[in-house]
Amino acid sequence: MKSLIECIPNISEGRRDDVVAAIRNAATSATSGVLLLDSTSDRDHNRSVLTFLGDGPSLLTAMTAMVEAAIAHIDLRTHKGGHPRMGAVDVIPFVPIRRATTKDCVDLSKKLASQLAEKFNLPIYLYEDAATSEARRNLATIRQGEFEGLAKKMQDSLWMPDYGPSEPHPSAGATVTGARAPLIAYNINLGTADLSIADRIAKSIRHISGGFRYVKAMGVKLEARGIVQVSINMTNYEKSPLHRIFDTVKSEAERYGVPVVGSEIVGLVPQPALLAAASHYLRLEADPGPQVLENKLLDLAFPASE
Amino acid sequence: MKSLIECIPNISEGRRDDVVAAIRNAATSATSGVLLLDSTSDRDHNRSVLTFLGDGPSLLTAMTAMVEAAIAHIDLRTHKGGHPRMGAVDVIPFVPIRRATTKDCVDLSKKLASQLAEKFNLPIYLYEDAATSEARRNLATIRQGEFEGLAKKMQDSLWMPDYGPSEPHPSAGATVTGARAPLIAYNINLGTADLSIADRIAKSIRHISGGFRYVKAMGVKLEARGIVQVSINMTNYEKSPLHRIFDTVKSEAERYGVPVVGSEIVGLVPQPALLAAASHYLRLEADPGPQVLENKLLDLAFPASE
Repeated sequence: MKSLIECIPNISEGRRDDVVAAIRNAATSATSGVLLLDSTSDRDHNRSVLTFLGDGPSLLTAMTAMVEAAIAHIDLRTHKGGHPRMGAVDVIPFVPIRRATTKDCVDLSKKLASQLAEKFNLPIYLYEDAATSEARRNLATIRQGEFEGLAKKMQDSLWMPDYGPSEPHPSAGATVTGARAPLIAYNINLGTADLSIADRIAKSIRHISGGFRYVKAMGVKLEARGIVQVSINMTNYEKSPLHRIFDTVKSEAERYGVPVVGSEIVGLVPQPALLAAASHYLRLEADPGPQVLENKLLDLAFPASE
Repeated sequence: MKSLIECIPNISEGRRDDVVAAIRNAATSATSGVLLLDSTSDRDHNRSVLTFLGDGPSLLTAMTAMVEAAIAHIDLRTHKGGHPRMGAVDVIPFVPIRRATTKDCVDLSKKLASQLAEKFNLPIYLYEDAATSEARRNLATIRQGEFEGLAKKMQDSLWMPDYGPSEPHPSAGATVTGARAPLIAYNINLGTADLSIADRIAKSIRHISGGFRYVKAMGVKLEARGIVQVSINMTNYEKSPLHRIFDTVKSEAERYGVPVVGSEIVGLVPQPALLAAASHYLRLEADPGPQVLENKLLDLAFPASE
C-alpha cells in the first residue's frame, strides 16, 4: 500500500491570487499522485499555506515543480508582509500520515533538498526531525535575520546551508524543508471569566514552564462567551496525547473550583489522535485502528504501491 | 458525494468453495461500484456471510446478480446445515455507513425486494427498520419454521410475503431483506474469576432485563486468563453508545469492588462510534468527524455521485 504523506508548503505570496493559483497548479499538474486539501492565503502576512497529500515520489515531483513556479513569480527583494520569511517558498514540511514513518519523511526532505539545490541553485536548510544539528531544529532560529540578513548569515560557517550554494538565491532566498509530526490545535474552555486561571493552567501544561514536552499553551479570553480558554498547540500527539492534556487541565481547573465546559479541535486532526483518546478512556486492549470500517475503505482507495 | 452502504448477504452454502466463489463473483462482476470487504464460510452451518460495500444503485445491481447466481447453484430441498435458513440467499441487510441514512437503506431494500420478486418469482420479507409490521422486525420470527415450513406458513395471511408470490420458490425458498444499524461486538473484561459478577452486570445493562435499549449482554468466563467478561452486542451505537455502556459496567463493577481491566472490540467498528467516545470524554463541543484528516481522503477517494 502506498504511503500517504502530508506536505504543507508556506509560500511568500498572499496577495496576488493569480500567482498563488499558478504556483498551486504547478504542483498538482506535475503529477496525478498529489491532492490539494487546502489553500489559505493571508494578505497581512503576504503568505499562503498550501496543504497537499500524496505518496513520497509524487510529492517530490510536485514540490520541485511548485518551487520552480514560485521562483518564477516571487521576488523577495520587493516582498513585504507581516510574517517572517527567508524564501520565495519559505518552508516545506513533510508529515507522515499513513503507512509512512518519520524516517520516510526525513529521507524525502533530503531528496527534495538535493534536487532543489541542484536544479535551481537554491540553498536549503533541513529542520525539525531532519535537522543536521540541534541548533537547526527550530524554524525560527534558522529564519532569524530573514531574507534581508541571509547573505551575511551564510558567511558564518555555523549557518552554511545543508544543500546548495553558500549564498542566497538572488530573488528566492533560501528554503527550509524537513519532517515533523502532525500539529493539533486544541482548546479547552473553562467555566470562568478569570483569565489568570487559564494562564496558570496553561503554564502548568506547557513544556517551557515544566509541563508536557510537546505542548505549547496560553490563556485566552473568549469575550463573546464570557469565559476563558486554555489554547494549546500539540506538536506530537503520540508522545503528549489529547487525553493526558485534557485530564491534566481538568484536574488543575478543579483546584480553582472551575469546571471544564468543553473543548475544541481547530482545523484538521489525524484519526489516530482521536482513536487513542477513545482507546484510553474505554481501556481498549488493542489499537482499534485496523478494525475501523472506514480504514478498510482507505486501504481499498489507496491500494498497493506503483 | 456518493453514499456508502454496507451489505452483508447470508448465503445458504458454506461447504462448496467453488459455488461460494461463483456467487460472490456474480456480485462483484455485475458492477464496478461494489467492493468485497470480507467472505467467511462456516462448514458446520453450511452458510457464508459476505460483506460488500458500495453506493445504493451499485449494490442493487450486485445483489440482483448475486441472487440469480445463488438460485442457479443452491437447492434448499437438499441443503443441510446447523444454522436456521429459509432461502438460498437467506437474508440481505443494508447498513448505512457514510452519506447514507436508515431511510436510504430502507428504500434500497424495498427496491431490491421488488426487483427480486419480479425477476425470479421469489417471495421477499422486509425486516428490521424496513419491516411492515412489528411482528416482522425480528429475523428469527420471520424465519421460524425454516424452508421446510415455508409453504404452510405462507398460507397464514399474517405471513404473506411483502413482495412476490405467496408460495416459496421451489428450490430457493424466500429471502429476507431490510435495513439495520451497524452491529458492534464489544467485550469488557473484569478483574475477577467470579462469573456470577459478570452475569449480574450483564443483566444490569441488557435491554431484556431493564438495561439499555440497544444492548444484548451475557457473562463469559475467559479460562486462559482466569477472568470473566461482560460480552456485549450493541445493535445501535448511536442510541446506546460505547462510553455509556462502558461507564455503567465500570460503575456496576465498583459495587463489587471489581476493576475493569480492559475492553475489546470484535470485528469491524464504524469510525463514528469511536469518535463519539473520544468526543464524550474530551467534552468536544463539535463532532470531530469532518475534521479528521483521513475523512478528507475518503471524500476524495469516493467523490461526488454519478
